[in-house]
Amino acid sequence: MGEFELLARVRERLPQPGALVLLGSGDDAAISRPGGVTATSVDALIDGVHFSREWSSPAQIGAKALAVALSDLAAMGAEPGEAYVVLGVPTDLDEDGCLELLDGMTRVAEETGTTLAGGDVTRAPALTLAVTVVGHAERPEDLVTRGGARPGDALVLTGELGGAAAGLLLLERSSASDIDHPGGGSNSDALLARQLEPRPRLEEGRALAGAGATAMIDLSDGLGGDAGHIAEASGAALRIEASALPIAPGVTEVAEVAGRDPLELAVSGGEDYELLAAISPDRLAAATAAVAASADARGDGGERLALTQIGEVVAGEGIEIRLPDGALLKATGFDQLD
Amino acid sequence: MGEFELLARVRERLPQPGALVLLGSGDDAAISRPGGVTATSVDALIDGVHFSREWSSPAQIGAKALAVALSDLAAMGAEPGEAYVVLGVPTDLDEDGCLELLDGMTRVAEETGTTLAGGDVTRAPALTLAVTVVGHAERPEDLVTRGGARPGDALVLTGELGGAAAGLLLLERSSASDIDHPGGGSNSDALLARQLEPRPRLEEGRALAGAGATAMIDLSDGLGGDAGHIAEASGAALRIEASALPIAPGVTEVAEVAGRDPLELAVSGGEDYELLAAISPDRLAAATAAVAASADARGDGGERLALTQIGEVVAGEGIEIRLPDGALLKATGFDQLD
Repeated sequence: MGEFELLARVRERLPQPGALVLLGSGDDAAISRPGGVTATSVDALIDGVHFSREWSSPAQIGAKALAVALSDLAAMGAEPGEAYVVLGVPTDLDEDGCLELLDGMTRVAEETGTTLAGGDVTRAPALTLAVTVVGHAERPEDLVTRGGARPGDALVLTGELGGAAAGLLLLERSSASDIDHPGGGSNSDALLARQLEPRPRLEEGRALAGAGATAMIDLSDGLGGDAGHIAEASGAALRIEASALPIAPGVTEVAEVAGRDPLELAVSGGEDYELLAAISPDRLAAATAAVAASADARGDGGERLALTQIGEVVAGEGIEIRLPDGALLKATGFDQLD
Repeated sequence: MGEFELLARVRERLPQPGALVLLGSGDDAAISRPGGVTATSVDALIDGVHFSREWSSPAQIGAKALAVALSDLAAMGAEPGEAYVVLGVPTDLDEDGCLELLDGMTRVAEETGTTLAGGDVTRAPALTLAVTVVGHAERPEDLVTRGGARPGDALVLTGELGGAAAGLLLLERSSASDIDHPGGGSNSDALLARQLEPRPRLEEGRALAGAGATAMIDLSDGLGGDAGHIAEASGAALRIEASALPIAPGVTEVAEVAGRDPLELAVSGGEDYELLAAISPDRLAAATAAVAASADARGDGGERLALTQIGEVVAGEGIEIRLPDGALLKATGFDQLD
C-alpha cells in the first residue's frame, strides 16, 4: 500500500472537522479561522524511547500520542482545536496496524473535540509519532503559563500520583518474568491504564484557568522536575508537603514488590499527566468545586477528580519537599534526553 | 547533555519571535494571535528515507526540513508565520551537531520571516525532523487550494525542473565511485544545491495567489504525481506539453551519463519544490510579471524566477503529457510510501 492510498483510507475514517476548520486534511495545508489566541504544542513518541510495542496495542499508542500532546493544552487551560500528525511507519507495521493506530487517535480526538486536520505519513526505522496540537482561547489572559506563581499561592494538584510509574513497573516485571502483571493486586488494571491510556485533564485545566490559576504545568516528567519548571519560570520556590501527596491506589503495593519507595514513584515517576497549578488561597474552594464539576461538563460518566493542596509557593528558588519526618529535601530537576 | 540543557542553548540562539507570537518556546505551548485565517502543514524528514547524513551537513538537513515544510505554505499563497519542530536525535549526533542543525533551520527561518515558536527534542534511532508550519492570510479566499482548476486555465510553473533529481544522481554516483560529483559539468554545484538546499517559493506563491491562481501545488513528489493531485482535487485533466518544460541547466548532461531520459527526471524526479498553478489565460501576463518581481520583494539579491506556461487544464481526469513527437502519454501518479 502506498502513502496516498493509506492517506485516502485514513481520510475516509476521519470525523467531520470542527467549526473553526475551513479545509481539513488533503491539500497542501489545512485552513482554519482561529479567532482569539492559539496555544500550540508539539510532542513526539518513538518506539523504544517513549513506549514499547510489546506492551501497547497500536490503538493505545495512537491514543496516547494525541492524549499527551493535548495534555500540554490542558496545562494552558486552552480549548482543544486541531491536531496535525506525523506517522513514521516501520516495515513491520502493516496497513491494518496503521489504521488501528489512527482509530485509537480518532477516538481521543472525538472524546476531546479535537479535529485531526492534517498529517504526513512516511517510512521510519521505528514507529514514530509527532503530534502538533492547536488550542484556542478568547484572550491571552485566559491562558495560564508556567511563569505566574507568586509567594503565598497554594500549590494544587488534580488526581493522584505514581500510577503511571507503577504501571510501568508492572509492565517491566511482567515482561521480565513472563507472568501477567504481578504485584498490583486489584489495582493492576487501573495502574496499567494510567501508563498506557493517559487522559489529558482538559476540562480540569480550563476549570483551573477559569478559577484564577497563576501558573500551571502538566506532569509528564514527574512532579519533581515539572514543579521545578514552574519555580524557574516564576522566579519563586515551591514547597511540597510529601504527606499531602495523593498517591494512587496500588502504588504502595507495587513499590513494595519492586523494592522502591512509593514517595519516589510519586515525585519522580513521570507520565501521570495530572495538572500542577499555583493559585491564590482565596480561590482554592472555587477551584476545587470547578475541578470536581468538570467531570459533569465532560459528560462521559468518567472520573471526578479531586483537587488536592500539596504545598505552597514561597520566596526563593527551586523546589523543596518536606518529608513526613519534617526533613526538608531539596529536589533536583529531572534532566535527561528522553 | 540533557534535553533541558540543549533546549536552553537552542533558545538562546533563537531570533526574536514575530509580532503575532505572544509567547515563544519554553512553556507548555506557544501563544499566538493569528487573526484572519491560518494554513497549517506538517512534514517529516528521516535519515535514510528523505536524506543521507553522508551527503548533507547538519545545517543543510535543518535548513531543508524547514524549507520543505514552508514549501507547502508557498503552495497555498500563505505568509509564513510560525514553525514547531520535533528533533529526534540518534546517539551519534552530538550537541554541536544538534546546534549546527538548528542554526541551519534558524537561517531559513530568518530569511523567510518564520518564528521558531516551539519544539520537542527526543532520542530517536535515526535523525528525525518533523516540522509543523503555520502560515497566515487575511481571508480564506486569499489562499489557493489544489481544487479550483477549471478547463481553459493555463498551467504554469515557476523556475526549472529536474535539478533536484539530477543532484541526487550526482550524489549517488559520487558516493558509488568515490569521486567528486561526476557528470554535472559546470552546473554540478547548482544541481547539488537544488537537492540539498531547496528554497521554498514563498514570494512567488503569494504573487501567484494575488494574480488569481485557481489551484496550486508545490512539486515535492515530482511534476507527474503532483499535477495528478491538482487534477483529482479539481475534477479536471491537466495536459502538459513536454517540449515546454523548462529543464534546469546540466540535467540533460547528468541524465546522459546516468543513462536516463532528461524528460523522465523533469516529470518524475521529485524535490524541485517549484510551484505548479492553474490560472485563467487573461491573468497570465500579470502573474508572470508578479513572479518575476517577487525576487525584488524578497530583496536578497537572489534569483528571479521565470513563470512558464507548460500546458492547460482540459475537461476529463488525470494528466496527459504530449511528447515532442506528438504522442499523448497518460501519466500515472507517483504513489509510494517515502
